[in-house]
Amino acid sequence: MRILGIDPGFGTLGYGIIDAVASRVELVDYGAIYTEPGEPIPDRLLKIYMELKKIIDFHSPSEAAVEELFFFRNVTTAIQVGEARGVILLTLREMGLPIFEYTPHQVKQAVTGYGRSEKGQIQRVMMKFLRMKETPKPDDAADALAVAWCHFLSRSYPGGARKK
Amino acid sequence: MRILGIDPGFGTLGYGIIDAVASRVELVDYGAIYTEPGEPIPDRLLKIYMELKKIIDFHSPSEAAVEELFFFRNVTTAIQVGEARGVILLTLREMGLPIFEYTPHQVKQAVTGYGRSEKGQIQRVMMKFLRMKETPKPDDAADALAVAWCHFLSRSYPGGARKK
Repeated sequence: MRILGIDPGFGTLGYGIIDAVASRVELVDYGAIYTEPGEPIPDRLLKIYMELKKIIDFHSPSEAAVEELFFFRNVTTAIQVGEARGVILLTLREMGLPIFEYTPHQVKQAVTGYGRSEKGQIQRVMMKFLRMKETPKPDDAADALAVAWCHFLSRSYPGGARKK
Repeated sequence: MRILGIDPGFGTLGYGIIDAVASRVELVDYGAIYTEPGEPIPDRLLKIYMELKKIIDFHSPSEAAVEELFFFRNVTTAIQVGEARGVILLTLREMGLPIFEYTPHQVKQAVTGYGRSEKGQIQRVMMKFLRMKETPKPDDAADALAVAWCHFLSRSYPGGARKK
């Protein structure tokens, strides 16, 4: 099973891909899609759509896990994040991927064993779990790998996943 | 100039298309894209994307005008509306359309001459302006025609449009 994990965002969208064969997990790829805050919103959305499609085309994941977002400074931020999220969900569904969602709490619990984590901890833990030689950067990519990891655990011990 | 007006929404997305040649305006088409509240969000977003693409493919508008949304009951509603809005903006940009945005106040002012309007008034005014034999339904389609009309006026008397 090849899992694409996504940490949604407008300026920075983190992604991480892992292969899970039985209990063995291998790192495939990770990174981020960046869009320029100064560019028009529709152009930024189109970039997210095109880049995410390319990543899916290239790596052919079998399932996608997306972090749910809860907290926003205000309604304007919520709409913007919603716009990016809408395009992400559309792209995943158009590419035929089953989509699973996890709360930040579920992701942190899966990775660190409890629902909170200090700065840099998720990067360090993912680096160790996936036997990486370098710290996964940016944070958003490490978070995306953690979402993929959370989905892997949830597939092994079902109950926590919320399929869209 | 063929203008596609859009009244964004998740359950009901209104659209209206008009042709403007000099000061003469002709109705081309109007209607709504519906998605089922019970269906998974990604499926609903994909339906909006596919249907909107079909409409654009069929009518080949040269410009798009979208109503901006401001008021939300809560952050959850704002995220949902943002998701639909993100997919709409993506689709319009992917199809190469210049996108213009108008506030509800601008649209009402363009159609009724002042920024407020009572129930059914936009439908009645658009019916008269476009020499329609039937009341445009649903409301959302009449609103979309009003957005297109507002863009037509704003092109004739520039200043109000906000290009994305």
